[in-house]
Amino acid sequence: MDIIERASKLFDHVIVAVAWNIDKTPLFSVEERKAMLEEACAQFPNVTVDVLDGLLVHYAREKGAKVIVKGLRAISDFENEFQQALMNFKLDPELETVFLMTRPEHSFLRSSLVKEVARTGGCIRGLVPPMVEARLLAKLRGGGSGDGRAETP
Amino acid sequence: MDIIERASKLFDHVIVAVAWNIDKTPLFSVEERKAMLEEACAQFPNVTVDVLDGLLVHYAREKGAKVIVKGLRAISDFENEFQQALMNFKLDPELETVFLMTRPEHSFLRSSLVKEVARTGGCIRGLVPPMVEARLLAKLRGGGSGDGRAETP
Amino acid sequence: MDIIERASKLFDHVIVAVAWNIDKTPLFSVEERKAMLEEACAQFPNVTVDVLDGLLVHYAREKGAKVIVKGLRAISDFENEFQQALMNFKLDPELETVFLMTRPEHSFLRSSLVKEVARTGGCIRGLVPPMVEARLLAKLRGGGSGDGRAETP
Amino acid sequence: MDIIERASKLFDHVIVAVAWNIDKTPLFSVEERKAMLEEACAQFPNVTVDVLDGLLVHYAREKGAKVIVKGLRAISDFENEFQQALMNFKLDPELETVFLMTRPEHSFLRSSLVKEVARTGGCIRGLVPPMVEARLLAKLRGGGSGDGRAETP
Amino acid sequence: MDIIERASKLFDHVIVAVAWNIDKTPLFSVEERKAMLEEACAQFPNVTVDVLDGLLVHYAREKGAKVIVKGLRAISDFENEFQQALMNFKLDPELETVFLMTRPEHSFLRSSLVKEVARTGGCIRGLVPPMVEARLLAKLRGGGSGDGRAETP
Amino acid sequence: MDIIERASKLFDHVIVAVAWNIDKTPLFSVEERKAMLEEACAQFPNVTVDVLDGLLVHYAREKGAKVIVKGLRAISDFENEFQQALMNFKLDPELETVFLMTRPEHSFLRSSLVKEVARTGGCIRGLVPPMVEARLLAKLRGGGSGDGRAETP
Repeated sequence: MDIIERASKLFDHVIVAVAWNIDKTPLFSVEERKAMLEEACAQFPNVTVDVLDGLLVHYAREKGAKVIVKGLRAISDFENEFQQALMNFKLDPELETVFLMTRPEHSFLRSSLVKEVARTGGCIRGLVPPMVEARLLAKLRGGGSGDGRAETP
Repeated sequence: MDIIERASKLFDHVIVAVAWNIDKTPLFSVEERKAMLEEACAQFPNVTVDVLDGLLVHYAREKGAKVIVKGLRAISDFENEFQQALMNFKLDPELETVFLMTRPEHSFLRSSLVKEVARTGGCIRGLVPPMVEARLLAKLRGGGSGDGRAETP
Repeated sequence: MDIIERASKLFDHVIVAVAWNIDKTPLFSVEERKAMLEEACAQFPNVTVDVLDGLLVHYAREKGAKVIVKGLRAISDFENEFQQALMNFKLDPELETVFLMTRPEHSFLRSSLVKEVARTGGCIRGLVPPMVEARLLAKLRGGGSGDGRAETP
Repeated sequence: MDIIERASKLFDHVIVAVAWNIDKTPLFSVEERKAMLEEACAQFPNVTVDVLDGLLVHYAREKGAKVIVKGLRAISDFENEFQQALMNFKLDPELETVFLMTRPEHSFLRSSLVKEVARTGGCIRGLVPPMVEARLLAKLRGGGSGDGRAETP
Repeated sequence: MDIIERASKLFDHVIVAVAWNIDKTPLFSVEERKAMLEEACAQFPNVTVDVLDGLLVHYAREKGAKVIVKGLRAISDFENEFQQALMNFKLDPELETVFLMTRPEHSFLRSSLVKEVARTGGCIRGLVPPMVEARLLAKLRGGGSGDGRAETP
Repeated sequence: MDIIERASKLFDHVIVAVAWNIDKTPLFSVEERKAMLEEACAQFPNVTVDVLDGLLVHYAREKGAKVIVKGLRAISDFENEFQQALMNFKLDPELETVFLMTRPEHSFLRSSLVKEVARTGGCIRGLVPPMVEARLLAKLRGGGSGDGRAETP
C-alpha cells in the first residue's frame, strides 16, 4: 500500500495489476485479491486495479503504460527484480522499470511470513490492512466463501 | 551441534525446539528428529529438546525464554533470518534474537545438500553425527521404522 | 552455450553433464535435453554431452575429469555454487572447481524466466538457440513427442 | 549518460547535479565536470546541469524537484544507495527517490576502474563519451588547463 | 545506544570499548567519545565505558569478558563482521561473538552519513542523542575545546 | 599460497604478478613482496614471480598468457572481481578469467586484518607463511632493511 500511494504521487495514473502465479498456491483467489485491493485503493483517485493475464510487457503496451513500478526490500528482492527488469527491457526497450525502496519499518514484511504468523496463532494487526486481517483470519479458520487453493492446478 | 554447544556456554538453559514445517517434506518425522537431537545433546546438561508447536514467540513466552539463538551461515541465511528477527521483535519486543556465526568449516553444510550427497551414493561421514549418518542411510535405503514423508500432506 | 564454448578453449576435453533433478519438474526430459545439447555443441570438436547419474564427484573420477567448470551470474548463483564447491572439495580434495563469470548480456537469463516469457506468449528469439526455441514453443503448445513432466515423481 | 537519457523520458525536467566530494580527489574539477556534462547533455532539451552545493534535500526543495533519480549497478551500489535514500526520506518525507537499473553492458563501469585503465595505458574508447576520452587522456598526460587535484584539501 | 541497551539486558555486565582507529580521522577524540558515551550510558547501571588499547581478544581476556557483542546492519556490515568474528575465534576460541540485528528504523544510520548531513547544513535531530548533536554542531562550526583531527597522524 | 598451488595444478605455467598499487601504502615494497613470493613459490617448479607494471591485459598478451586466475572469498571480493573481469573482457575478449573459491578456513584472511592483528600485538602464526611472519614483525617493530611506505607518494 505504501508503494502504491507513493507511485500515485509520481505518475498521472497507476494500474495495480494482480497476477496469476502458477507456481504458487495462493490463499486468496485472483478475484478476492482484486476486490481487497480495490477497497484499499479507493482512497487514491488515480489508481485502478486490474487482473494481469499474459505477459507484463504486452499488458503494458496494450494499456499505454510507459513505466513499471516495483518496490525493493533490502537485498532479497534485488537480484530477482534485476533479472526481471533486464528481461522486460529485452522484450520492450521502450518500457522503463523504476524502483522505490520500501520503508525500513516494512522491510520485514513478506506475505509468506505474515501468513505463517497468522496460521500459528500470532497477531497480525498492523501488518496488513484491517479488512485483509479479517478475511485472512476467516480464510485460515476454514470458513469464507471460497478457497483460493481450489483453483490452482 | 556446534551452535547448540556454544549457546549452552552462553546461557543458563537452552531449549532446542524442533519445528513442524508444513512447506517441506522432511526425511525424518518430528519425533525422529527430537530423538536424534536428544541423543546428540545428552552431553550438554543444560540443554533440553522439545517440539515447537505454534508460534515461536508464544512458545518462548510460555517457557520463560528471553533469547532466541540462531546460527548464521555467510550470506544465504542472512536476509531470511533478518526478516524473521524483525517480525519476532514486532510480535514481542521483549524477546531478543542473538546470532552466532557458523564456523567456516561448516559453511558449506546445508541439509538438502547432505541429503543429496547421501541419495546419490556419496560419503557423508563427518558431515553429520555418526548415529544420524546410520539412520539417514537406513532411511534412504527404504528401510527403517517409519517414513517422515508419510505424515506430510 | 557461452560457458561451454569458453570452457572448450581452456581445457583439452569438456563433458557437458545433463543432470537428473528430482526436486524440479523439467519441461524437457533428460534425453531431450541431451539431444538438444548435442546438436548445439556439434560445432565444438572437443565437447561431448553425457547424462550424469549419481554423484558428480564419482562421475568426475570415473571419467578422469580433474576440473568442474561452472558459470556464475552476479550474486544469485554465488552462495549456492560456493556451498556446492566446498562440499565437492570435502568429498574429493583432488577435484578442482573453476568459475567463469557469465557475460553481462546474459546475466538476466534464468531458465524459469525464459519459460515464463514463452508460456505467457512473449518472444524468446535470441534468448535460447533457434532449435531450442522451436521445441520449447512446440512443448508449451501441448504437442511434441513426449512430456518431461510425466517422468518425474 | 544512459540514466540521464532515460530519466529525461520519465520526467518533465531533469537537473544533473554535479556534487563536491570532500572525501575524494577528483581528476576533474567541478567546473570541468559541469562543462563536459553540459556538452554531453545538449542533445536532451529538458536536461540542465548544475552544481550541487550543500545538502541534496535542501537543493531539491529550493529547485522544486519532487524526485531524486539514481542508477543502481548490481549489488555494489545497493546498500549505500539504500541508506542514502532512507536518510533523505528522514530529512524530507515528501521527496521521493526512484532507482533505474543500469543496463548490463554498463555494469562493469566504475569511474575508478576507467581511470585506472587509462592511467596504465589501456584503451578507454567506448567506455566514456569521445570528448571525455580526449580530456581524460590529456589530464593524465599532465597537460590541460587546470588540475582537479589542486583544488582539493 | 539501542545495541548497548539490549546487550545490558542480556548480560550481567557490559563494557563499551572505544577504539583507536589509525585508518580514520575521527571528528571526536577518543577521550571526547568516551565522555559522551559515559553520559549517554549513565542510565544503564551495568554498563561501563572504557578505551580499548591493543588487540580486542587480549583486552577481553584481561577483563574476563566471555562475549563480544556486535550490531549488524543489513548487508553492509555483514562480511566485515564475519571476517573479524572468525579472526577473533582463531585468536581465542573461547571468546564468543554474538550479533544483534539493528532495528530497521536505524538501518540507514551510518556515522559518515550523519556527519555529511550535519556538515552540509541538514538537521540531525533524532539521528544522534541530543548532547551529541550539540557537540557535533559545535565541532563542525570550528569551535570546541579540541580537535580530533589533530591527534591522528 | 593455496590459490597459487591449485592454479599450478590446472595450468602448464603460472606467473604470480606483483602489482603496484598507487592507492594503498603497502607495508612491504614491490621488491620485498616479489622476494618473499619467490621464496614461498620455490616449491612449485612451474610457477614464476614477476612485477606487473602497466595494464594487466597488456602484460598478459606480452607474456602469451591466456588465462587470469583469481581467488574469490565469499561475498566481499565478488562484485569487485566481477567488474574487473568484465572490464578485462572488454579490453581483450580473448583473455579469459577463471575464479577459484578460497577454502573456508581462509575466508577470514584479509591482509589488512592480519596487519592490524600484528600491529596490536596479536599472534599471527599460521595466518601467513613463517618467513613472512618474521619479516612482518620485524617491519612493524621499525627495523628491517627498507620501508615500503617510503616509496609511495
